[in-house]
Amino acid sequence: MNADPPPLSPDGEDADARGGLDRLVSDLSARHRGVLSEAEVREVMHYSYDRLAAAARVRTYLLVLSSHLARERLAALSRLRTGTSKAVPQVLFVCVHNAGRSQMAAALLDHHAFGRVDVRSAGSKPVADLNPAVVESLAEIGIELAHAFPKPLTDEVVRDADVVITMGCGDACPIYPGIRYEDWDLPDPDGLSAAEVAPIRDETDRRVRRLLEELS
Amino acid sequence: MNADPPPLSPDGEDADARGGLDRLVSDLSARHRGVLSEAEVREVMHYSYDRLAAAARVRTYLLVLSSHLARERLAALSRLRTGTSKAVPQVLFVCVHNAGRSQMAAALLDHHAFGRVDVRSAGSKPVADLNPAVVESLAEIGIELAHAFPKPLTDEVVRDADVVITMGCGDACPIYPGIRYEDWDLPDPDGLSAAEVAPIRDETDRRVRRLLEELS
Repeated sequence: MNADPPPLSPDGEDADARGGLDRLVSDLSARHRGVLSEAEVREVMHYSYDRLAAAARVRTYLLVLSSHLARERLAALSRLRTGTSKAVPQVLFVCVHNAGRSQMAAALLDHHAFGRVDVRSAGSKPVADLNPAVVESLAEIGIELAHAFPKPLTDEVVRDADVVITMGCGDACPIYPGIRYEDWDLPDPDGLSAAEVAPIRDETDRRVRRLLEELS
Repeated sequence: MNADPPPLSPDGEDADARGGLDRLVSDLSARHRGVLSEAEVREVMHYSYDRLAAAARVRTYLLVLSSHLARERLAALSRLRTGTSKAVPQVLFVCVHNAGRSQMAAALLDHHAFGRVDVRSAGSKPVADLNPAVVESLAEIGIELAHAFPKPLTDEVVRDADVVITMGCGDACPIYPGIRYEDWDLPDPDGLSAAEVAPIRDETDRRVRRLLEELS
């Protein structure tokens, strides 16, 4: 699942990022001291950066986005290593591009959960940008997706989940014992307008509320 | 502190928002059932919307932003009413515009805290937009401010705080017993470039880390 990323290239832009990456590695190593080594933190941080850099068209927030991704992955790794139990159930939504359905479901569940579940999403083949009709359709009901971004599916985030909901990503998601899996058969919003996305959003909303009731 | 906002105007744009506002009032009322009435939730939701609408230049995310603001205010109101203790200390940063210093300090503290404190920021006279040099200066070290927005200082958010850090907002912040107050004398980044903001960012970072150590 983790194809080898291209290495951090030595051009000017990435050289600018290096100072920021070093600072993040230091912050995240301090956070995970005693559980994860600095070398492990550095590897996850640089891998996350390289992976997103390979797909990114806009580089301004590359460091911010790779920091988010690395934080999630390191938190999952740390919990798996220490066997720390989670305060609340962890739900992972997976689709192919992580640009539409899985992002929408994650945002809706997070909106209704008020901290009662922890929500993640990922794609088996993440693209560079969110689907703008999905962003607009959620903004119409006051839900933000503006700072979300398509993220690659990684092994430790799957293993750290309690519930995995797949949406049209076939068998790309690895199966582990002890995790509840569900497949939601929802139309793909790719190419639709915000008005056409609205009924998919509302059906997703119904399913997400039902899931939340089951988990609460 | 809460000047009367203009009422939700009956033009087309705001009529579009009304459906979204009704849905948010319903979601937030469900969340706070038994503690806050639907009328109270509606008042806070509409007040937050009207207040931000009066300052906003871009209306796309007005519903999203007013939802964020209303959620924070309702959570504070609910905790004050039930006397529920907070799981972690709550820190509020206040400056005049909530566009630079207080936003930067809040983002840095949240970055380092990993959930060990809950962080808010507000301005005594919030402006429409964040300071772009501050956003850029934080992005350089992998910290996101892109989805933050200037927020008005409201009474319940002050009363719900454990620590209030003021930055150049004079006596605009009301004083309540039991809250720790500090004033941080830091240069105003207004009008500076990202490179000029960097030393202010780094001094803020040092203070924020010290505060976190004291609270932990």
